[in-house]
Amino acid sequence: MTQGRFLVVEGPEGAGKSTLIRGLAERYREAGATPLLVREPGGTPVAERLRELLLDPAHPIDSVSELFLFLAARAELVARVIRPALAQGVTVLADRFQLSTEAYQCGGRGLERGLFLAANRAATGGLEPDLTLVLDLPPELGFDRIRRAGQGFDRIERAGPEFHDRVAAVFRNATGPGITHLDATLPQEQLLRAAWDLVLARGLAAHPARRG
Amino acid sequence: MTQGRFLVVEGPEGAGKSTLIRGLAERYREAGATPLLVREPGGTPVAERLRELLLDPAHPIDSVSELFLFLAARAELVARVIRPALAQGVTVLADRFQLSTEAYQCGGRGLERGLFLAANRAATGGLEPDLTLVLDLPPELGFDRIRRAGQGFDRIERAGPEFHDRVAAVFRNATGPGITHLDATLPQEQLLRAAWDLVLARGLAAHPARRG
Repeated sequence: MTQGRFLVVEGPEGAGKSTLIRGLAERYREAGATPLLVREPGGTPVAERLRELLLDPAHPIDSVSELFLFLAARAELVARVIRPALAQGVTVLADRFQLSTEAYQCGGRGLERGLFLAANRAATGGLEPDLTLVLDLPPELGFDRIRRAGQGFDRIERAGPEFHDRVAAVFRNATGPGITHLDATLPQEQLLRAAWDLVLARGLAAHPARRG
Repeated sequence: MTQGRFLVVEGPEGAGKSTLIRGLAERYREAGATPLLVREPGGTPVAERLRELLLDPAHPIDSVSELFLFLAARAELVARVIRPALAQGVTVLADRFQLSTEAYQCGGRGLERGLFLAANRAATGGLEPDLTLVLDLPPELGFDRIRRAGQGFDRIERAGPEFHDRVAAVFRNATGPGITHLDATLPQEQLLRAAWDLVLARGLAAHPARRG
């Protein structure tokens, strides 16, 4: 069976990642495929408990500890969910992956990039996305969106504006195989069209594999 | 103020680590000091939640994820508890530290030593114990002790005998600056005397710093 495709959507808070992923999933379903949606951190019992711990504003977390908690959650998700799905030919759509760790832990918290790269490689076993869509949005616009949606801020969203400026800079400057930037200030429908056009152009919507 | 001493007791399950640490703490108190006792994983709110997760037999954990969870707990403990105590001149007695990670995650689970070394250095910020006492005990004897004590087995204790043989081999063969082996089949009082003699011989009981 053909290996499934692995698509990742990245970007700062409030950029519209989950809305775009739901839209892409709908397009895949219209094309006859049944994609699997995952979000980081989370997706396994252990990773969901780590998600609670990481987003809980009740207690601070040491920066190195935070890095390892995100990577622990990723190792679980890749080994138990993403790799088995891809092996069955299922397309996986992920809300955040390794670029978020580079942005928040290296950019935001100032951790060493060499440590991130080595430890992340262990967490993913070298798995790379076929396509990473980075939603470009000035961080203050993202926070306005969260505020307007009436959502509370989690532990990471509560870090100061300088932190989020450093995070945004990593997203904005990200380059590499399979990394493509999209303007997240576009209206939702237009953003989805641009993203789906990219998926088609890269031949990533080709095979209508079904789950199970 | 003089920096506190950092003593670690390591060894397989049931070797008598916590009994020895309580004994050493008593000797320090008799010598006029008030040592701080810590055990890994644990010691901060985040690390205690990781301890529950790591020892809970209800769910399996991916090996790489397990490594990062232990290191996340260590980073918290070192940054928030051990370093501040040492800086105040307090002696810290730790039930397990980095040698346990090498034994269980590299020896037992077969993870790469290079990854462990780099990630562990990030977790500890390079902090090294002044003395590491390794309690040598054939693993089957340790399990007999746990069984006789009527304790249940946690997730890691439930790993198979080959796993625990590989763990024991790392403990048995451990060498390095400050690493000393003790025969854990000795009667408790004799083991404590041997350990305290070592502490005295290394000049690690010298200054009667007080906490707080």
